[in-house]
Formats: sequence, structure tokens, C-alpha cells
Amino acid sequence: MLGEILEQTQRKNPLLHCMVNLVTANDCANLVLACGASPIMAEDLEEAEQVVSACDGLVLNLGTPSPRKVQALLLAGKTAKSQGKPVIFDPVGAGCSDFRRNAAHEMIEQVRPDIIRGNASEIRTLLLGTLARRGVDADVVAEEPLELARALAEKTGAVVVISGDVDVVTDGKTAYRVRNGHPMMRSVTGTGCQMSALIGAYAAANTEKLLHSVLAGVCGFGLCGELAYQRLSVLDGNASYRNYIIDAVYHLTGEALEKGARYEIC
Amino acid sequence: MLGEILEQTQRKNPLLHCMVNLVTANDCANLVLACGASPIMAEDLEEAEQVVSACDGLVLNLGTPSPRKVQALLLAGKTAKSQGKPVIFDPVGAGCSDFRRNAAHEMIEQVRPDIIRGNASEIRTLLLGTLARRGVDADVVAEEPLELARALAEKTGAVVVISGDVDVVTDGKTAYRVRNGHPMMRSVTGTGCQMSALIGAYAAANTEKLLHSVLAGVCGFGLCGELAYQRLSVLDGNASYRNYIIDAVYHLTGEALEKGARYEIC
Amino acid sequence: MLGEILEQTQRKNPLLHCMVNLVTANDCANLVLACGASPIMAEDLEEAEQVVSACDGLVLNLGTPSPRKVQALLLAGKTAKSQGKPVIFDPVGAGCSDFRRNAAHEMIEQVRPDIIRGNASEIRTLLLGTLARRGVDADVVAEEPLELARALAEKTGAVVVISGDVDVVTDGKTAYRVRNGHPMMRSVTGTGCQMSALIGAYAAANTEKLLHSVLAGVCGFGLCGELAYQRLSVLDGNASYRNYIIDAVYHLTGEALEKGARYEIC
Repeated sequence: MLGEILEQTQRKNPLLHCMVNLVTANDCANLVLACGASPIMAEDLEEAEQVVSACDGLVLNLGTPSPRKVQALLLAGKTAKSQGKPVIFDPVGAGCSDFRRNAAHEMIEQVRPDIIRGNASEIRTLLLGTLARRGVDADVVAEEPLELARALAEKTGAVVVISGDVDVVTDGKTAYRVRNGHPMMRSVTGTGCQMSALIGAYAAANTEKLLHSVLAGVCGFGLCGELAYQRLSVLDGNASYRNYIIDAVYHLTGEALEKGARYEIC
Repeated sequence: MLGEILEQTQRKNPLLHCMVNLVTANDCANLVLACGASPIMAEDLEEAEQVVSACDGLVLNLGTPSPRKVQALLLAGKTAKSQGKPVIFDPVGAGCSDFRRNAAHEMIEQVRPDIIRGNASEIRTLLLGTLARRGVDADVVAEEPLELARALAEKTGAVVVISGDVDVVTDGKTAYRVRNGHPMMRSVTGTGCQMSALIGAYAAANTEKLLHSVLAGVCGFGLCGELAYQRLSVLDGNASYRNYIIDAVYHLTGEALEKGARYEIC
Repeated sequence: MLGEILEQTQRKNPLLHCMVNLVTANDCANLVLACGASPIMAEDLEEAEQVVSACDGLVLNLGTPSPRKVQALLLAGKTAKSQGKPVIFDPVGAGCSDFRRNAAHEMIEQVRPDIIRGNASEIRTLLLGTLARRGVDADVVAEEPLELARALAEKTGAVVVISGDVDVVTDGKTAYRVRNGHPMMRSVTGTGCQMSALIGAYAAANTEKLLHSVLAGVCGFGLCGELAYQRLSVLDGNASYRNYIIDAVYHLTGEALEKGARYEIC
């Protein structure tokens, strides 16, 4: 099942519009190439609408935001949705400023992304804000990741991923726990952004199977973190590890993904 | 002949003003250092004029453009030309939006770059626009790369490079086909940007020999892609390949370039 | 002494607000993770104040500046200082345009950074400007690095680092010469930015020991340049070297730093 998602991506070679950030733009572009898709990196409001119209999917990443970039993200997001193209939203650091928090809420309410991926803190920020605006008691969000993800999925209609020691994936009905990945991935900047980009590429090539595309991206990226870790020599640190993760995505096959994916329905 | 271009670059250590993009800025800077030149990375309108005045050459790259960046590119380009410094223009994604297309045409008409490097689609966009504005039939541009390159070279007076399976280089009179390079280079983001930066560095150190500088850059970068490919281990993917290409530029000698360059006059 | 600085950083895992530049943002983020701290990369005026309030230290880097970025640097810097958090200022290319020169002076006069790190030319620019504004004879700055560093430290109250073949560190009273490092580090873009980020991480975790934190950062980064150099294979160039330097920071222990640091009081 997951292997087909990957193989379909390699066959279709979807064009993915990546609006990411200045820290991880290069890694995300190489990641997208590694998995068999093609990236277009464009950031500005001036061309957001036209670029997304030429693409098969869109990644909206909230890292290093500016007011103009947020406008571009909103315009690109709404355009993609109006054209039926999958939109994945990564609320990087959503809780670190009012500016990001507000931008994240605008993104959810105006764009209605198909997929949202963040860590527990980021997803909690999204949920709290959404709830607060709806007058719901914030206490309900002091929950474990699966509850958080389910709550946000129900509110937004999106497939929600929470990354952590164990990842959680749910569309509000079906839910998965994913046990791929390695703790050392935390020592590489932008692994979250990269996972979102991989999910975006898979979704762009498998629009009829969003939930499975997301699951494939979460399992696949974690698996590549494991494979890359096995490859480390005694002198290799987080910089070499960063390269090996992308290398592993480059070599990942459908068969290896089927065998290596470790998830369970819950 | 080509070896001397490289050696002169190492001897002169030219200062190259690189206005590139947020995806490939780091790779381009390391590439410029690898070939024996020194990069100054500056993007803003506020300092475009002064920075270029301190440099020996200028790279104008259209990736991740904004209106303000385009103004900065135009100002830096015109300043460099007025000071007789070589300007190379890389019309990244020229066809992906009206904004880029218009910016590319402004660049050509207002700056008159000495060198233009792109893929066939980008060069076709430049040529179509230019022709359209001059009322010429667009049919003439449905041609093979060599014809495209010649047509743009004649229109603009620039040395034109079209990158592809076989690269084409021409100043409108003399033309070369270059058979260096490796298909895997397409799986690394920004290899086009890096080739433009290498050409820019060579041109900045060899202003009297622009055509040969361009040919050396095209052959040299392709050759480094071949050398880097030979070095790949079974687990290495596009991320390691990216490093090995820059490593190969770092070690490339004039002698190796002379031996490894595969081009023919046509 | 220096080993404790490093170990305290690993224990405390400080959050470092890094306002760097589009060329080296990724390397700086991975460097900060490598040394045991956590980076927040944020650039925009809109969130500068809030982000820095959540952090333990601040890196202000003048690379690829725009007027808006300079405003953000000033606001973040003043906020950090008002909260007693260490601020390190890296005047990248301070002399390459009036815009940068003026921005650098504003940074020094309005923010009063705790630490300033640059090469001799950048520090000379800061000192000349400062002196000129105070009507002092510019002749005094045609001196060797130690005199330059002492003069700027006295004028500003900051701990000043001048990077070069031999690095100099001084708070105006005590001064050190550091003999760590390797000439090949010059062929990697952003090694200066990375050294500043390492110093910033150490300072954020050791606010009571600023001078020793700076010394540890200068020795530690140079030592990692040496260790990375020893690891180079015959085909490795500046791109692999770049990875190995960050890898070495990842593996650097307090004990190794104590043993490998080569400095003398002067």
C-alpha cells in the first residue's frame, strides 16, 4: 500500500511548489528531487498565484515569516485549493510569536489545508487558538498527541500529523501511530520541514489517497532517518547525517518502504 | 586554452558579486570559493551599486525573485556594465510567471548582460519575448538548442549557453557543443545556478576571453559532475553528490580540465 | 576552564535566537544544534521582540542586509540587552557599503553588544567609524589586530574577537592570542558566521563568564577546523570539509577542548 504511493510519485514526477524558509530551502529542494518529484521554489506574492497554477501540489511552511510572505502563502494556498490541488501546511514555530500564531490561524481558516504537520507544541497552538475563537474550554487540549491530532482533524477536516518520539497520523476517523525515525534526527535542522515536503510530494502524486500518502511520508522519512543512522561512521556528526538522510530518500524503494514501515492503527 | 582560464582565475582570485537566491546561495558561495575566486553575497537595492563597484564581475540570478530584488539586480547590472565588468545572467524559471518573464526581459534590455545561461525552456522564453516585442514570428523559435542559442546571441550580443544533455555555447559566430556532465546532476538542486557562478568567476578573471571563459565553465562544471559521479558509493545519493561536485571543482586543475573537456566546434 | 563552558552549554541547552543571513542560515542552525544548544531562526521585524524574549541569547549577523532586516536586528538587540541576555554582533562585510557601515555603527551605538567578532578589516571599519564620529585621528587604527581589538573593546565595552591566522580575544583588560584553526577554513563560506554562532551559544549558557565563553568558542571552532582537516580524504574538498567541521563540533567534548585549545595570554 505505502510502496505504491512512493512508486506512483516516481512515475508521475509531480511538480511541487515549495514555499519554505531561508534555513531549509536547499534541503527541501534536494529532498523533493530525491523522492522523484520536482520542486519549484518561489516565495513572493507577485508570482504566488501563477506558480501554484503550474504545479501539482503546494507546501506552505511558516518558517522565517514576513508579512509579505504570509500574504503570499495565503494567496498561493487559496489558489491551490480552488484548483483542487493538495496543500500541506507546516506551522513552524507557531507559538513563538503572536505574528506566527495569527498567521497560522489565517492559514487554517482561509486556506483550509488538506494536511497539517507539526510537533505537539505547534499543533497545540493551532488548536488552542481555534478553540479559543470558538469559545471552547482550553483545558481539553492538555492531552496526549493522539487526542490533539484528532481534535484538530475534526475542527479543520485536514489530515493531521504530530511528529514526536512516536508520530501520530489521523484524518479524524482512522488514526495511526508510527514508530519509525531516530532521536538523532532532532540534531539536524529542518527535518520537520523535510518531512512535510516529502508528504507534499507523495500527496501531489496520489491525490485520491491523501491519508495513505501522509502515512507513507511519515513512515518513509522516519525510515530514512534509521537507514542514515546505520551508515554513520565514528567521526560523522549531524552534518553528515543530514546528507545521509536525503541520500536514503534518494535510494528508498517501494519495497523497502513496505518492509521498513512500522505503524499500527489505533 | 581552457586550462589557462582556470589557472588565471586561481592566480587573480577575482571578487565576484553573486546575487543568487535563497535555495542555492550557500552552494554558489562554496562553488566560487572552490574555483579560486571570492564571493560577495549581497541582495539588497540599498547596497547593490557600491558592492558591485568593489567587484570584478557580477552574477544575476532570477531565482526566488521579489520586486525589490529585481530592482537590485537591474541596478547592479547596469552599474557593472558601466564599469566594464562582465555580467552573467541566469534566467531561472523565466517562464514560470509573468513577473519573472517581464523581469528577464528588463534584465536583457536594460542591462545587456555579456553572458546568458539557461535551459532550453528558459532561453526560449527570453527569445520569444524579445521576438514578440519586435513583431517577429514566434515560429522561428521552435528550433533545436543551437538555433535558439544563436538567435538569442544575435539579438542580444551576449555569449549564450543552453544547458541540456548536450550543452551549447555560442557568441553568435563561433558555436560549441559540449558533451561533459552527467544526468544525475539533474537530481541536485541548483546545479544550473552553480554552473552560472563558475562561468562568472572564470569570466571575471579573464575579461578579454569571454567566449573561452564560458566554454571553460561549461566544460569544467560538467567534468566535475562526471568526476563526482565516479566517486559515489552505493549508499550515496543526491545530497552526497552535491558535496562531491563542489569538492571536484575544488580539486580541478588546468591540466585536468584540458584533458577532460569534451567539446566540438559546430 | 574552557571545557566547563562547553559542558554547561550541553547541560543547559540554551535557546539561541539567530538572525543570520541567507547564505549561512542552514550551517549556523546545524552548528548550534551540534554544540548542544537550540536555534530559533527568525528574521522579521514583526516578531523580533517576542522571539528574543523567549531565548537565552542573540546572534546579530549583518550578512545580506536589507533596511527592514537592520530594523529587526536593532529591535531584537535592544530587547535582548534590556533583558540582560548576551548579544553577539558579527559585522559581516561592514566595509563593503555605506549601508552596512552605517548599520554596523547603529548596532554598536544603539544595541551595545556584549561581544563583537569580525576579521581585521571589519573591526577596523567599526573602529574608524566610531573614531571618526568622535573626532579622533584615524591613524591610530593602522595597527596590528591586538591593538585594534583592544581599542574597540575600550570604546564599546564589548569582548572583541578578531579572526585571522592568529585570533585575538580581549575585553580591553585581559587579552588572548589563539592559535587554533586551519587555513583551509577560508575556503568554506560562513565559517566566520559559524564561529559567531558557537560563541553565542556558549555565552547564552554561561552568562557569568562571557570572556571565557568567547575564548572557548574561538578555540573550539578552530580546533574543530583542525580535526575536520585531519579527516579529509584525497578527493574531499571544501564542501566535505564544511560538513566535517560541523561534525567535529557535534563530537567535541569538554576534555578534548581543554587538551586541544591553544591560546596564550598577552
